[in-house]
Amino acid sequence: MFPPGPSIRKNARVTSPRNLLDDTLARVQPLSDDAMAQARERQALLTKPAGALGVLEEVSIQLAGIAGTCPPPAPASPAVAVFAGDHGVLAQGVSPWPQEVTVGMVENFRAGGAAVNVLARACGAVVRVIDVGVASEVIGDDTVLARNVRRGTADLATGPAMSREEAEQAIAVGIDVADQLADAGHDVLLTGDMGIGNTTPSACLLAALTGTPADVVTGRGTGIDDETLALKTQVVAGAVARLRPDADPIDVLAEVGGLEHAGIVGLIIGAAARRVPVILDGVIAGSAALVAQAISRDSIAYCLAGHRSVEPGHRAALAKLELRPLVDLDLRLGEGSGATLAFPLVRAAALILDEMATFDSAGVANKDN
Amino acid sequence: MFPPGPSIRKNARVTSPRNLLDDTLARVQPLSDDAMAQARERQALLTKPAGALGVLEEVSIQLAGIAGTCPPPAPASPAVAVFAGDHGVLAQGVSPWPQEVTVGMVENFRAGGAAVNVLARACGAVVRVIDVGVASEVIGDDTVLARNVRRGTADLATGPAMSREEAEQAIAVGIDVADQLADAGHDVLLTGDMGIGNTTPSACLLAALTGTPADVVTGRGTGIDDETLALKTQVVAGAVARLRPDADPIDVLAEVGGLEHAGIVGLIIGAAARRVPVILDGVIAGSAALVAQAISRDSIAYCLAGHRSVEPGHRAALAKLELRPLVDLDLRLGEGSGATLAFPLVRAAALILDEMATFDSAGVANKDN
Repeated sequence: MFPPGPSIRKNARVTSPRNLLDDTLARVQPLSDDAMAQARERQALLTKPAGALGVLEEVSIQLAGIAGTCPPPAPASPAVAVFAGDHGVLAQGVSPWPQEVTVGMVENFRAGGAAVNVLARACGAVVRVIDVGVASEVIGDDTVLARNVRRGTADLATGPAMSREEAEQAIAVGIDVADQLADAGHDVLLTGDMGIGNTTPSACLLAALTGTPADVVTGRGTGIDDETLALKTQVVAGAVARLRPDADPIDVLAEVGGLEHAGIVGLIIGAAARRVPVILDGVIAGSAALVAQAISRDSIAYCLAGHRSVEPGHRAALAKLELRPLVDLDLRLGEGSGATLAFPLVRAAALILDEMATFDSAGVANKDN
Repeated sequence: MFPPGPSIRKNARVTSPRNLLDDTLARVQPLSDDAMAQARERQALLTKPAGALGVLEEVSIQLAGIAGTCPPPAPASPAVAVFAGDHGVLAQGVSPWPQEVTVGMVENFRAGGAAVNVLARACGAVVRVIDVGVASEVIGDDTVLARNVRRGTADLATGPAMSREEAEQAIAVGIDVADQLADAGHDVLLTGDMGIGNTTPSACLLAALTGTPADVVTGRGTGIDDETLALKTQVVAGAVARLRPDADPIDVLAEVGGLEHAGIVGLIIGAAARRVPVILDGVIAGSAALVAQAISRDSIAYCLAGHRSVEPGHRAALAKLELRPLVDLDLRLGEGSGATLAFPLVRAAALILDEMATFDSAGVANKDN
């Protein structure tokens, strides 16, 4: 049902990553205004004071707009897509963790022992890991998809992290994963990531795409000291300063991003084209979503912010994306942990709209007004 | 398995509500320092950067302390105890909703159509409604427990809401419900409430027990206009000013509280005596928890704050309780909705501690330090 390796695409016209992206972008539609209007109306009839369920009501309206029906079906089969990649910038000393932790954690995901596995089991989600850019060899199976585009990025401190073609290939992997997961019946996709050093390219994307200074968006990632933070900030500032003024979003991604970021860009656009909601994880997903937003503004309407990370740049990303995080518990793990914790809240929002009684049906007196 | 009406208590020595309270208070023990130390140690071994799961790690440590073992069992059988009562202060015009909505919503809970029913089904929780103070007659069954202490409070604007004996009786109902639910195998109790007008006694309790001015703790409840808010604030200030300086917490509860508040006080103390964790809902639970804290400081160690309500006084309550809310989504519904949304997060925290691999067991390299 979920074969390793590339799937044979149904659309024979699609022959290159660039064509796949263009084809997918053309299928991204705005949300349904009709369904959202119906959801707003229905919320007002339910046995509760108007607005008393706060953000859950907004989520239910968005889900109606995504599904194009009211009430929208409650998402019941979540899949976490964990994109894994390595980062040449690690050579600059931006993280105290060795690069082999990335592949070690891929094996931990495969064995089911990582945080995201535990959280996914708790809410009935499956975990799929996509090797889109791990530096060492990874064996593909039903859980870990072997879709490596290149064995880690080049050092973004000294030159482009990857070529534009590689960025497009990694985006195409993400689109393909979204299609495969939707074909397998998953009705909500959660983003995840694994890559030692990947808060550095995230900070570069955040700085480049929101115009926020490097020292504001650069954070401590998995935990670095003041000296390393100063170095990391300098690396981010230097890389962003190198970007050409006429760089388009994919140029920016190729120059200072990561392969897992590119995969998540594809996942977002691919899911949007299929009208499947996406729950974003933390700062890596947030920075990738900024790229997706710059390519396809409509694609972000399909996204919910699973949580707000401790990473300072995530705040800037959420502000630019105009998304309100559902969980805010000082998490800074990645892997999709925050998105997975948010899934029950998203599902609850849809169930409320579907299952609650109305004042009329329950025979409850309404407010005197 | 869950008979309506009072259960026959095992302890024949307990003959009065006051004796039951004293007996229960004597059984409330501090959390286990040993189990919490073990949980902290174990968190440091799991395959993630130290502290990367933020508040979830703190919750897991608290659950270990509550259970007295590490890892603690993950709560698997939640019950929402929705205490329902009416309020004489409604005569002052503090709410636009008519009193009969309370009993109407009790019937809605029984039929399964209210928000808390939907949210409870979504996370596998049962809903038990306790008529501890509804003004009109309520029929008891397996879902709705007929434990009425009085048919609504008196108007707290003009005199005591209830007698001290009635407050003690309602606390005893809460203790008994905690015992019955624990006996039935529920391993986490969630507080809920229903009572038109009950944010007014909540604001009184908040003002009296935190020393915060009435105009800070009084909010719009289910939605009132500026004029009604001014009136409500005046009612709260007047009632609190009437309290004798030597009033003990139960005197305060009797003078300006509600019967559902008293029920929740009992539930908290009863659950703590059984070492069962309690997830508090919003401002009604928060104000009741302040009473529980004043009676038994140790009982609050068994509580988690399910969410932060929009009601302004809830912030003051959480600060005094030293609890951090798990969900913060602009909810202001009550019923236990916020607590129920938080349950999957609490369960996830325990599962993380139990099921995650360690660096050693997964063979993942640890940080260079």
